[in-house]
Amino acid sequence: MENLGLCTDLYELTMAQSYLEHRKTGRAVFSLFVRKLPESRNFLVSCGLETLIERLEHFRFGDEELKYLKSLGKFSEEFLDYLREYEFRGDLYAVPEGRVVFQNEPLVQIEGSLPEVQILETLVINTVHLQTVIASKAVRSFLVSGGRSLVDFGFRRAHGLEAGVYAARASYIAGFAGTSNLEAGRRFGIPVFGTVAHSYVMIFDSEEEAFRAFAKSFPQNAVFLLDTYDTLEAARKVVELAKEGVPVVGVRLDSGDIEKLSREVRRLLDEGGLRDVRVIVSGGVDEYRIEEWLSKGCPIDAFGVGTKFITSADAPYLDMAYKLVEYEGKPKFKTSPGKATFPYKRQILRFYSGSLMDHDEVVRYGEEHGGERLVEKVVEGGQMKVKLPKLEEIRERLMEDIERLPPELKTLKRNSYRVIIK
Amino acid sequence: MENLGLCTDLYELTMAQSYLEHRKTGRAVFSLFVRKLPESRNFLVSCGLETLIERLEHFRFGDEELKYLKSLGKFSEEFLDYLREYEFRGDLYAVPEGRVVFQNEPLVQIEGSLPEVQILETLVINTVHLQTVIASKAVRSFLVSGGRSLVDFGFRRAHGLEAGVYAARASYIAGFAGTSNLEAGRRFGIPVFGTVAHSYVMIFDSEEEAFRAFAKSFPQNAVFLLDTYDTLEAARKVVELAKEGVPVVGVRLDSGDIEKLSREVRRLLDEGGLRDVRVIVSGGVDEYRIEEWLSKGCPIDAFGVGTKFITSADAPYLDMAYKLVEYEGKPKFKTSPGKATFPYKRQILRFYSGSLMDHDEVVRYGEEHGGERLVEKVVEGGQMKVKLPKLEEIRERLMEDIERLPPELKTLKRNSYRVIIK
Repeated sequence: MENLGLCTDLYELTMAQSYLEHRKTGRAVFSLFVRKLPESRNFLVSCGLETLIERLEHFRFGDEELKYLKSLGKFSEEFLDYLREYEFRGDLYAVPEGRVVFQNEPLVQIEGSLPEVQILETLVINTVHLQTVIASKAVRSFLVSGGRSLVDFGFRRAHGLEAGVYAARASYIAGFAGTSNLEAGRRFGIPVFGTVAHSYVMIFDSEEEAFRAFAKSFPQNAVFLLDTYDTLEAARKVVELAKEGVPVVGVRLDSGDIEKLSREVRRLLDEGGLRDVRVIVSGGVDEYRIEEWLSKGCPIDAFGVGTKFITSADAPYLDMAYKLVEYEGKPKFKTSPGKATFPYKRQILRFYSGSLMDHDEVVRYGEEHGGERLVEKVVEGGQMKVKLPKLEEIRERLMEDIERLPPELKTLKRNSYRVIIK
Repeated sequence: MENLGLCTDLYELTMAQSYLEHRKTGRAVFSLFVRKLPESRNFLVSCGLETLIERLEHFRFGDEELKYLKSLGKFSEEFLDYLREYEFRGDLYAVPEGRVVFQNEPLVQIEGSLPEVQILETLVINTVHLQTVIASKAVRSFLVSGGRSLVDFGFRRAHGLEAGVYAARASYIAGFAGTSNLEAGRRFGIPVFGTVAHSYVMIFDSEEEAFRAFAKSFPQNAVFLLDTYDTLEAARKVVELAKEGVPVVGVRLDSGDIEKLSREVRRLLDEGGLRDVRVIVSGGVDEYRIEEWLSKGCPIDAFGVGTKFITSADAPYLDMAYKLVEYEGKPKFKTSPGKATFPYKRQILRFYSGSLMDHDEVVRYGEEHGGERLVEKVVEGGQMKVKLPKLEEIRERLMEDIERLPPELKTLKRNSYRVIIK
């Protein structure tokens, strides 16, 4: 990774220079939180902390960055020297990845000298926002899929290569079985899936020839795409090929009336003795369609989930902010209508009723009584204080939280959870 | 840039191995196009070609990528050797960046051996999709802003750092005056803007002290943020400070009832003799709000446009596909309902009526008659054939196209343009 110092907004640096000029270099705490959940989210999944910690180490200013900043003619030599020496030496408090979280809960809190923590704002929001947006979207498909496999097919329409790779990570945390994205597979060890596109079927002189060719190349992975020409015709061909001994693992439907086609394809496969062959559906899949199809009893075994999840199309952003809450031990808050903030470094306490979550309290850090504490001190003086969990552990942690979620929060209907700010 | 070979979906590589095994290595053409425009887009702005061309050069497989692919246990040694030697040696035809384009028009067409061009699918869509989505969103704010300055303030809520940087590029092409994003400023030479956040105001013992401090640090850039506590009180303080000789360039409103506040702040400034001080509005700004405020005559001089534009919140994705259209000179097309494709490599012809665009025709390449040709051959045999334009030239090209757009397409109301596929 290169130096990330310029991954910030200009105003962070103008503010920082002015802070230094006016000796405003006391200890400050900034808090990252989501003011309000989107209408279509009952909870969020904390995600992106590992990436943030990696990036903090690379938030530095080298010759190239400083040369550019100097060229702007806005900054003093003293300030450019400050940036040359910059490295994050503060403390970072965070909710671990894979936790269920809500409005007004501090996901990340950063404490250090004021200019040091101010200039991280853009990087912190950008990094945690993306993965939290995607994990919080992906988990909704997981919740309605009744244990069926979900695979991330979204890479092509993610907002950039980086977004695609981190979305694969976030969706794996949220319960997906894997991804089509090879870079995410390599980088995070996520299982990868995929067979063929329509172009493959179109290249051969007949659909049948294409199916035979693919089964020959990848007998253990023989999933046939049925909807290039006529889906039911294609399903009949698959049955015929199976009778000849061609291996058949699954079939994929990527367009058309999925409710009708899934039933008819299943019937054709069953009648042809292919009861173990899986029906996989892709193309426009999201949690709303999954719920609809499954509520109607459509015989679908797995879903390829793509564009709508990877852009979080129904809620592509969160009202996530990084706000000053404490300076030199004193409370700091805004009072602007609708954008008021809560002062002080904070802990989140989670209270359970039986095995289910009952409510959370957001209290001043160090003044905790009862409840499960969600916020951990992760970095102290710029050094890692805890060992970050593996991806599988994060995924398991989320599964535990989901078991403890009140059932009404697990539906696609709007329900809210009580968060008390003390 | 590192090797980008794994920035692809698994199925591209399984298909490619199977193509090679079955000697399907003839010359193929794939076409990148948008099937249908979103409801809230009357046209698109072609964007992302330069990035795509840079990335094609880096679409290679080195030791690390090959080691990972080998570990999957799916690929033959012959195929891994093919990937080791892979570099793009085909032809690329494209609409230049900064052109107004429509549904079913081939934005990029890539010709080469079948496996060579198949495996680029994910990279091509991902790269062109992002910038086309953002430029097509950003231009809508430009069209309704009546010449007022627009600045990209979205970096923090873009879907990743990469998305933020390329969105700054796309929005500059679409007529924005600049960005807050320093990395985009450095990389593309885009003008950068920014002053202070609420935290700056909150750090000083009083708002007045904060204003004085910032004006002292950056007298030429003295834009004061008014809405930390009470917007009108803050405006009065600015007037008082100006009377003392403190420099005042502008004021920024980031929350509240902008219609009311912009009028009252303007009145206070004017009464205080500050007629040249600019009123800048940010916070939830998009083309709908800009149009509403300006239609009501709100005295706003500039806008900071953020989250809703940088996530293209009303249309976060396009129905963009990369489809096989020709193989060994023969037409190729899908017939699945709603996803039918048009065969052959194609040219887009644009016909004008007087000074305005009248309709486009999408014809077979080499069979053009009349009209302005939009598609250029950009790469031949893996080598650049044309010199790519500078960012300023792309921006000017779009401004020329916008002058020729039928007026009804420049509004936020749904209107469509005639594209005839021949």
